[in-house]
Amino acid sequence: MKIGFIGFGEVSYKLSQLFKNEEIITSSKNRSKNTIKRINKSNAEILKDFNEVAKNSDILISANSPQKAIKIAEKYGNINKGIYLDLNNINPHTAIKINNLTPKFIDSAIIGNINHKPVLYLSGKYYNKLKILNKYINTQLISNKIGDASQLKMLRSIYTKTLAAALIETTDIADSLNLKNELLQTLAINEDKNFIKKSNSRIKNTKKNSKRKKEELEEIIKYFKDYDLSMSKATLNKISKNDL
Amino acid sequence: MKIGFIGFGEVSYKLSQLFKNEEIITSSKNRSKNTIKRINKSNAEILKDFNEVAKNSDILISANSPQKAIKIAEKYGNINKGIYLDLNNINPHTAIKINNLTPKFIDSAIIGNINHKPVLYLSGKYYNKLKILNKYINTQLISNKIGDASQLKMLRSIYTKTLAAALIETTDIADSLNLKNELLQTLAINEDKNFIKKSNSRIKNTKKNSKRKKEELEEIIKYFKDYDLSMSKATLNKISKNDL
Repeated sequence: MKIGFIGFGEVSYKLSQLFKNEEIITSSKNRSKNTIKRINKSNAEILKDFNEVAKNSDILISANSPQKAIKIAEKYGNINKGIYLDLNNINPHTAIKINNLTPKFIDSAIIGNINHKPVLYLSGKYYNKLKILNKYINTQLISNKIGDASQLKMLRSIYTKTLAAALIETTDIADSLNLKNELLQTLAINEDKNFIKKSNSRIKNTKKNSKRKKEELEEIIKYFKDYDLSMSKATLNKISKNDL
Repeated sequence: MKIGFIGFGEVSYKLSQLFKNEEIITSSKNRSKNTIKRINKSNAEILKDFNEVAKNSDILISANSPQKAIKIAEKYGNINKGIYLDLNNINPHTAIKINNLTPKFIDSAIIGNINHKPVLYLSGKYYNKLKILNKYINTQLISNKIGDASQLKMLRSIYTKTLAAALIETTDIADSLNLKNELLQTLAINEDKNFIKKSNSRIKNTKKNSKRKKEELEEIIKYFKDYDLSMSKATLNKISKNDL
């Protein structure tokens, strides 16, 4: 089976490694130096352009940026006759738009860290065609509805960001009282054994990537605007204050 | 060793069961029917009044309500010549006041669920005198400073309440999208195996006891008023909205 990638960032690279027994195809046309380096390091076959990639893929994966998602679908969605996946962290509205631009679209989201047993969430009626990927990555069918996978990713994102914000608020106070380690040990009671390590990396990661996380959260808040979002908004506020 | 209880609610009852090889003393004077029933069910010896309890205790435990904590310390703190513990969920200011009313006070807080391996946090210079309790309950010395144990309890309380509020916000949205179970499964990725069960009980418990939790949080927000409390305040707001 041929799996084509439009865009070859870290996520595409990791996936191409996971799908090791399949034929990986991509193109280096107009790509950055870093991307070409990454492609060369991988097991991907390099085609002359993305038209060729789209034409030859049984599964075509768009993994670029949310801003480019629709443009890519417009350009290549119809050339491709296989399954079209978008891993650009798009919102459910965009998923529905792309569904209209491609013959066999499946709404998808990678949940969890790409390096630590991520799960590929899928929604849409063509799910069965991706069962083959279960050999390589844990896939979960959510429903037949385009948008559900991306909605779940957003809700998970609210939860994990709020958790990080709660950790930042309480450890900041504890730190000024010289009780930070004691607090983390206290929170770890009844949690799994990696809790302290995970919490420290959550805090660090949130502070380090606050700009991106802020933008993601703004997008999510816009999308769910009809719901009560007290916690999401406070988290946005907290992340903004912790901009490094 | 004699361990005396002033107040015999659920916490005192559970502790008296844990401290099974020690002599438990209390009084039923002016106690409610329910409390007397609980005392009779326990292994406690019943003395004629709390003066007697205070006089005879090597460890005197005040476990009543935050409102009565100081009054009890004023009345019995000086009669008692042993260690004085206050398990009334008091704030650190109150802990310092009680320290001035009793000769051998240790700031203490029960962290975690009283039924599931709770930990007894202690701060204050008399900690060594309570090492004997390690036979029965996991004790942790935080520092020699009165107030630190109760501060930690408050910070933990902010964290767990914020977590519950984040769960309520995201599962409420998911519920209206018919994705509640899917969301909980999604959040459970990389969490321990009891995550879904624990989360459901967190949500239920927070909604059921929203009045008490709201009051606790108001008290905490007042205490830490000089810090950034965006998350704590949003949580207060969320809990208030979910008042049943």
